[in-house]
Amino acid sequence: MEQAGRTGKSCSIQADSLALQEKATQEGLSTVWDRFAAQQPQCGFCELGLSCRICVMGPCRLDPFGEGPQRGVCGADADIMVARNLARMVAAGAASHSDHGRDLVETLLAVAEGKAPGYQLTDPAKLDRVAAQFGVAPDLPVLEKARELALAMMEEYGIKKGHLTFTRRLPPARLEKWRNLGITPRGVDWEVTEMLHRTHMGVDNDPVNLLLQALRTALADGWGGSMIATELSDILFGTPTPRASQANIGVLKADQVNIILHGHNPLVSEMVARAAQEPRVLERARQLGAQGLNLAGLCCTGNEVLMRRGIPMAGNHLVQELALLTGAVEAMVVDYQCIMPSLGDLAACYHTLFFTTSPKAKFPKATHLPFTPETGEDLGRRIVVQAVENFARRDPARVYIPGAPVAQMTGFSVEAILAALGGTPEPLLNAIKTGQIRGAVGVVGCNNPRVTQDYGHVTLTKELIRNDILVLDTGCAAVAHAKAGLKQPEAAAQAGPGLAAVCRALGIPPVLHMGSCVDNARIIHLAAALAQALGVDVDQLPVAAAAPEWYSEKAATIGCYAVASGVFTVLGVAPPVLGSKNVTELLLNGLTAHLGACFAVEPDPARAAALIVRHIEDKRRGLGLEAR
Amino acid sequence: MEQAGRTGKSCSIQADSLALQEKATQEGLSTVWDRFAAQQPQCGFCELGLSCRICVMGPCRLDPFGEGPQRGVCGADADIMVARNLARMVAAGAASHSDHGRDLVETLLAVAEGKAPGYQLTDPAKLDRVAAQFGVAPDLPVLEKARELALAMMEEYGIKKGHLTFTRRLPPARLEKWRNLGITPRGVDWEVTEMLHRTHMGVDNDPVNLLLQALRTALADGWGGSMIATELSDILFGTPTPRASQANIGVLKADQVNIILHGHNPLVSEMVARAAQEPRVLERARQLGAQGLNLAGLCCTGNEVLMRRGIPMAGNHLVQELALLTGAVEAMVVDYQCIMPSLGDLAACYHTLFFTTSPKAKFPKATHLPFTPETGEDLGRRIVVQAVENFARRDPARVYIPGAPVAQMTGFSVEAILAALGGTPEPLLNAIKTGQIRGAVGVVGCNNPRVTQDYGHVTLTKELIRNDILVLDTGCAAVAHAKAGLKQPEAAAQAGPGLAAVCRALGIPPVLHMGSCVDNARIIHLAAALAQALGVDVDQLPVAAAAPEWYSEKAATIGCYAVASGVFTVLGVAPPVLGSKNVTELLLNGLTAHLGACFAVEPDPARAAALIVRHIEDKRRGLGLEAR
Repeated sequence: MEQAGRTGKSCSIQADSLALQEKATQEGLSTVWDRFAAQQPQCGFCELGLSCRICVMGPCRLDPFGEGPQRGVCGADADIMVARNLARMVAAGAASHSDHGRDLVETLLAVAEGKAPGYQLTDPAKLDRVAAQFGVAPDLPVLEKARELALAMMEEYGIKKGHLTFTRRLPPARLEKWRNLGITPRGVDWEVTEMLHRTHMGVDNDPVNLLLQALRTALADGWGGSMIATELSDILFGTPTPRASQANIGVLKADQVNIILHGHNPLVSEMVARAAQEPRVLERARQLGAQGLNLAGLCCTGNEVLMRRGIPMAGNHLVQELALLTGAVEAMVVDYQCIMPSLGDLAACYHTLFFTTSPKAKFPKATHLPFTPETGEDLGRRIVVQAVENFARRDPARVYIPGAPVAQMTGFSVEAILAALGGTPEPLLNAIKTGQIRGAVGVVGCNNPRVTQDYGHVTLTKELIRNDILVLDTGCAAVAHAKAGLKQPEAAAQAGPGLAAVCRALGIPPVLHMGSCVDNARIIHLAAALAQALGVDVDQLPVAAAAPEWYSEKAATIGCYAVASGVFTVLGVAPPVLGSKNVTELLLNGLTAHLGACFAVEPDPARAAALIVRHIEDKRRGLGLEAR
Repeated sequence: MEQAGRTGKSCSIQADSLALQEKATQEGLSTVWDRFAAQQPQCGFCELGLSCRICVMGPCRLDPFGEGPQRGVCGADADIMVARNLARMVAAGAASHSDHGRDLVETLLAVAEGKAPGYQLTDPAKLDRVAAQFGVAPDLPVLEKARELALAMMEEYGIKKGHLTFTRRLPPARLEKWRNLGITPRGVDWEVTEMLHRTHMGVDNDPVNLLLQALRTALADGWGGSMIATELSDILFGTPTPRASQANIGVLKADQVNIILHGHNPLVSEMVARAAQEPRVLERARQLGAQGLNLAGLCCTGNEVLMRRGIPMAGNHLVQELALLTGAVEAMVVDYQCIMPSLGDLAACYHTLFFTTSPKAKFPKATHLPFTPETGEDLGRRIVVQAVENFARRDPARVYIPGAPVAQMTGFSVEAILAALGGTPEPLLNAIKTGQIRGAVGVVGCNNPRVTQDYGHVTLTKELIRNDILVLDTGCAAVAHAKAGLKQPEAAAQAGPGLAAVCRALGIPPVLHMGSCVDNARIIHLAAALAQALGVDVDQLPVAAAAPEWYSEKAATIGCYAVASGVFTVLGVAPPVLGSKNVTELLLNGLTAHLGACFAVEPDPARAAALIVRHIEDKRRGLGLEAR
């Protein structure tokens, strides 16, 4: 596994990251790479999944060399231990996305009940479509319809028999596979809770049974919590459409008030964005000597406001600390997930205000302004006002914004892609059938200091588009691609001739931005729609997914729902399962017989590309299409 | 911390355990103590809570001596790391009890809908009382009432604003404390899911905020999942009433077919118990040379059938393997929780059939017969028939049942205690007011090979009753006490004069069995009822709880809901929190200011007794009662 930072390799392929990490070193401030280096060597038992602290008869460790203990105190062997540990990761990832979705359901209800000033039903046509899928009467007045939809979606979290509603978007053959395995997802919170129960000491001790429930829990995320989050964000804030923007740390402006929006949920950031447009705020900023008020995104909150508002993107996961080191940030506003607890310390080294906004996510050295649907609009205003006033405290001598922003095109929701194709998936399917486009791959996931930042994403994606494979991206991967210039229409020049021709004809880049990490729901939704249009199951499509630099439990969950939905998925970082031969074999191979898809682990992105190209050509062959 | 097994100290204070562990050594079979010894030394980072593998930037370790890293890769310090780890333990414990409760809700619904042959509403009066608390119309026909109650209880798991219904059993002052802290529990699965979300990397990084949600999650167990499990078990299978039975491995019969019921949920074991009474089964057993069919319990499934049917108790957690070593067990039937995955291997060393019955809990080398409410009755019959046939395969030469059973009195539900007192709590309150009984303590929890088996329970309890403190017990602790003879009315002789006199007057032992570990809900319910009767909050009562030998995540959760409900709780095994001074301080002290209760950790049961006696006298003083 590659190791970055002080351990030898370069931290990043991105010039802005390298320049700011250098500034950190000069200023004596530590960042994620320093802490990663300090943690070396990491615990080999934990890395292999061979440690267990599920109960206090333990903690237990199993000897991977077969010389020391092969059973924990309870009697669990390597297969059980590894499966339980993995299952808990998946449960936590599903819980995270789903609890994010819950916040949107609650806000939708508040909007419907007139209790959320500032929020509105920005896309009523999408409300109509989604409400219809949930069986809400079509002739209700719009607010009542929203209310009924919110209540129906609350049921998706509860004790309900039968499928999650959104699973109906899948081909019947997929649902049949799930029924055979007993993994059709039920209520989202139910699956999470049952998964935790099953991994308690002395409950489920069959690695296959554990992994099946892990898949079911992941499916409750992908076709439940995450999809609810995506669809309701669109209804509340607008379904993304293609728009131009920019990326990298250069989007910060030395002469303006800079506010960074970081985290995952658009509920607060949308209100900050609205408040930032108020004339009196701009006027006050000018009074204080600023040329204006500049918003920039980070991580997936950044992706949300980029997709819908074109707010430029300052960086991905490993940039969150570096952004503060520019000395040019008046306020960093966070909601939750992937927010390093080091941010408060770093913000305190500058004039930066560090606002936390979720009652579920407090941080050291932060100013906590809790969000509720009722107060969100006011909260956005309070944050902007304080950020503007803070401009006066900036020390211009410490400001350092390396590099210039790179242009990117964003906003490719499923609806936007279909619209670009003229309203039907036929043109895309035809391009695939003729072989002009070989297939499509979702390149998604995080950064991880184990991998040189963005190297995995960019190397893999360049190789895929060169092979005429359309890339769909979300999350940190999307930021990596944007910074590498791959999300400009001009990047068609780096694509193979077939893909390049399609991109030029449609005026789109070869790498389409589909949103934040909950928006991986858009990718599986699109895959399901393509499968339905072709009359096949998802696993028959020439598609794949890759997470070259993943780090989080959410990513583990996304990988599981992708595979369980029929999408071959290549991980660039090994999950902590290698201590169990049986679990590893099941993930890398055994699942295929039942789900038509499995995982691969390949740290080298060029080799990962080769795996994916071969997979896609195999799937083309399976569909009777021309194959290389 | 005391360590048992090969590390020097005796494994157990119980003669039957020692004799059978000796047999294991002779036969070359390993048990929990051998595996515990083989795991020494256990990982100090994990024991202190200073390791984290929540994401794959890690695993991370913090140096407890302050020399190595003090931050994980994300920036989490010791306080955050320890709080997150503890919070996940509590979530898993709450999930376990609550998912157990869910199975009873589903069965109640099936009974109401006529889909669960063999199951019935055994206590319709209790159905009336509980249904009324849930707002079900009193004049509904009984099955319809059961259906409405089941549906209302399903809502307790979901996304519902406001209190869990059973919290209304508490004094208003307690609910007010929870409101002030923001820990009033909402839907059970919701709290579990939110807890998992909050402990994802980059979500909640405030140890106090994390611990508050851990307490809320625990309360959703105590006043939600567990209480639902207890109340519905009573409605379906009968509310326990005092009855005589026996305990220890001597309850197995050398000349009978022995079936052991192990796990936590009565749904299957009740059906096995019914089937075991069928004349044709007994006849077949006699044909095969057996004198009869003998059921015995283990762990909390054992407690369930002991409380309601007087089925004798073979042993607690650390006896589950030893029971198989008797060579006299035709079948061990398990449902879920605390079931060692070693059992299949051990059963295979004898003729024993090892039946697993929950689709959520499969085990190596088991015969899996999955339970559903629809098939439960038939399942019970199939198990009994196979067990009886298996008698023919028993090797009498290998049978070894050491010791003779000890008598015990059991069945002290809240209703039974009130009935014994003449229908009101007044006689008990008067005995407390006069000082005849100083107070009451719940001695609960598991076995743990870190502690000489049952030494913690029995030593503490003897000391408490000697000090005129009434002991209420559940779970493994109850089995320890029974085997030590403390659950016979004659044990009044070991109590102080005041308690002894009360016991003799009522014909009860000084240690009252309140059931299984979900039945700790009975103890907090009783405490709430006593507080209401006195017009005070729970934390003002002269009561406490102790878990001298706890091992499981469920026990951590129980401890948290006890403390959050106002009950001072003494742990005999330190939870993995000592790596954080702030978290430790909060648990051992800081909570008191807000909840009127906190934890103590005291491995020496005699010292734990002294702590509790002092606490109870302090509380007496606080109420203006005579105090020592």
